[in-house]
Amino acid sequence: MLESSFLFLIEVIGTVAFAISGIRWASIKEFDWFGAYTVGLVTAIGGGTLRDLLLGIPVFWMQTWWYVAVTGIAFAVVVVFRRLLVGSGRMLNIFDTIGLSLFVVIGIQKTLDAEFAMWVAVIMGMITGAFGGVLRDILINQEPIFFRKEVYATACIAGGVVYWIVGQLGGTPIGQGVACAFTVIILRLLATYYHWTLPIIKSE
Amino acid sequence: MLESSFLFLIEVIGTVAFAISGIRWASIKEFDWFGAYTVGLVTAIGGGTLRDLLLGIPVFWMQTWWYVAVTGIAFAVVVVFRRLLVGSGRMLNIFDTIGLSLFVVIGIQKTLDAEFAMWVAVIMGMITGAFGGVLRDILINQEPIFFRKEVYATACIAGGVVYWIVGQLGGTPIGQGVACAFTVIILRLLATYYHWTLPIIKSE
Amino acid sequence: MLESSFLFLIEVIGTVAFAISGIRWASIKEFDWFGAYTVGLVTAIGGGTLRDLLLGIPVFWMQTWWYVAVTGIAFAVVVVFRRLLVGSGRMLNIFDTIGLSLFVVIGIQKTLDAEFAMWVAVIMGMITGAFGGVLRDILINQEPIFFRKEVYATACIAGGVVYWIVGQLGGTPIGQGVACAFTVIILRLLATYYHWTLPIIKSE
Repeated sequence: MLESSFLFLIEVIGTVAFAISGIRWASIKEFDWFGAYTVGLVTAIGGGTLRDLLLGIPVFWMQTWWYVAVTGIAFAVVVVFRRLLVGSGRMLNIFDTIGLSLFVVIGIQKTLDAEFAMWVAVIMGMITGAFGGVLRDILINQEPIFFRKEVYATACIAGGVVYWIVGQLGGTPIGQGVACAFTVIILRLLATYYHWTLPIIKSE
Repeated sequence: MLESSFLFLIEVIGTVAFAISGIRWASIKEFDWFGAYTVGLVTAIGGGTLRDLLLGIPVFWMQTWWYVAVTGIAFAVVVVFRRLLVGSGRMLNIFDTIGLSLFVVIGIQKTLDAEFAMWVAVIMGMITGAFGGVLRDILINQEPIFFRKEVYATACIAGGVVYWIVGQLGGTPIGQGVACAFTVIILRLLATYYHWTLPIIKSE
Repeated sequence: MLESSFLFLIEVIGTVAFAISGIRWASIKEFDWFGAYTVGLVTAIGGGTLRDLLLGIPVFWMQTWWYVAVTGIAFAVVVVFRRLLVGSGRMLNIFDTIGLSLFVVIGIQKTLDAEFAMWVAVIMGMITGAFGGVLRDILINQEPIFFRKEVYATACIAGGVVYWIVGQLGGTPIGQGVACAFTVIILRLLATYYHWTLPIIKSE
């Protein structure tokens, strides 16, 4: 009970962080309020929606109004506390990272629950974490930044691999989830701090 | 019988209007005929397709060849009567608005038939009406104009809320549908006439 | 047995060719390795994924790790043999064309197996062959080139129509598939050689 409340709190924080990131991008593009809310919502729930469609399971955010409401809160925060947010990029990044790590774990567990193979689950963890941002970039008509950003989707994949390894070593699902989340968080923190990037693919 | 024929006629008109709008955008981008037809089809059926995928129900346009054929007619109209269309922007806008209002009603009713909650139906009404245009804009690689346009998606949401209120007041589904459609039409007409827009979200 | 091995080999060749095409586009855009791999994968499996979602059947590439692995091989080829690829545009085009023709046949047969009408199958054959490229173009934020390219999607449609005609004339599914594939290949070869294009749609 306490544990699931804790997970839910983390998921709400992650959703807010992702939504705020989307809404801020929309504000740079000077979208109207509805457009900004939509971009925020797509950023927050887009990855999980794509996952659920691919898995052929009911789309998660249509089962409870929480996600739509939480994105509304994120929107209000951006509109009302706009100036406060300027100085809080660091905090937002931390929220984003925590949310990312949980999204990856959720994506993996839902995929395994739907009886897909582990390698599918690793991909779905990455899609859950990283494709909300890709869909956001498609909506606002820019190249997906995650294709150039510091180790991001790769950190999700690494988290998925750790999830698998811990399971092979006899770890419980909770142990696997915690190890996976920590892997994502630590890799992202290190990558942001040291500006780790993947090699660029060279054209002829 | 008469009633369902009437609804079908409206749906055909709406499909033609949406398809023509897509094909005209494609002509501005100088696509070839096949590309233009595809953009027209996506504009006309894209919103309903996304709705059906999210609801997990069979995709509507794959059940009957009418939609694909009607888009073909719209294409022929644009190619053959190109010059006539120049002066008919106003009439096209009216068709588009009528089609939009019916698409919203259809989206809401299909969602409720699939036993989702009312708030999901309101969102699906909006997606059915407005996301064909979003998918069109993604295909032709421009920022979705509905994020900046006169009250458009918001009018769909307002129509959905009216649908719900009329139901709460004891209205029949037909009454709910009519009230919803009128709300969308009137809001769109007013918004176009007075250039109503939503506030722009400001960036820091 | 021999026959299905042959088909599988063709499918692998087609997947590699499509993936290489996507990865090369990503290299022009200077994406990082992960982004390039993702664009390659989307190019190779995107059309079939959209088809499976629309048909409401399990997504094909999630049933076996072959497609993900084969795309990895395509990626390694581009990174390691980059310079060799410069002079091999012609060979890549031939692989691409062979793969395209098989993708169309697979798309048609899967659709008929799922008990949809023939005209849906023709559309799904085209989507399987041509929409991986459309999704790639959306991801890398450029206008879908197939909307301007030499007869491409149209060749897929023509192949589908031939599949239907041969069936009407009493041909077996294998005969239908072979005739369809040859139609696509020959039309593409002729279109590339003679620079056949569809008419451009004119704007007012």
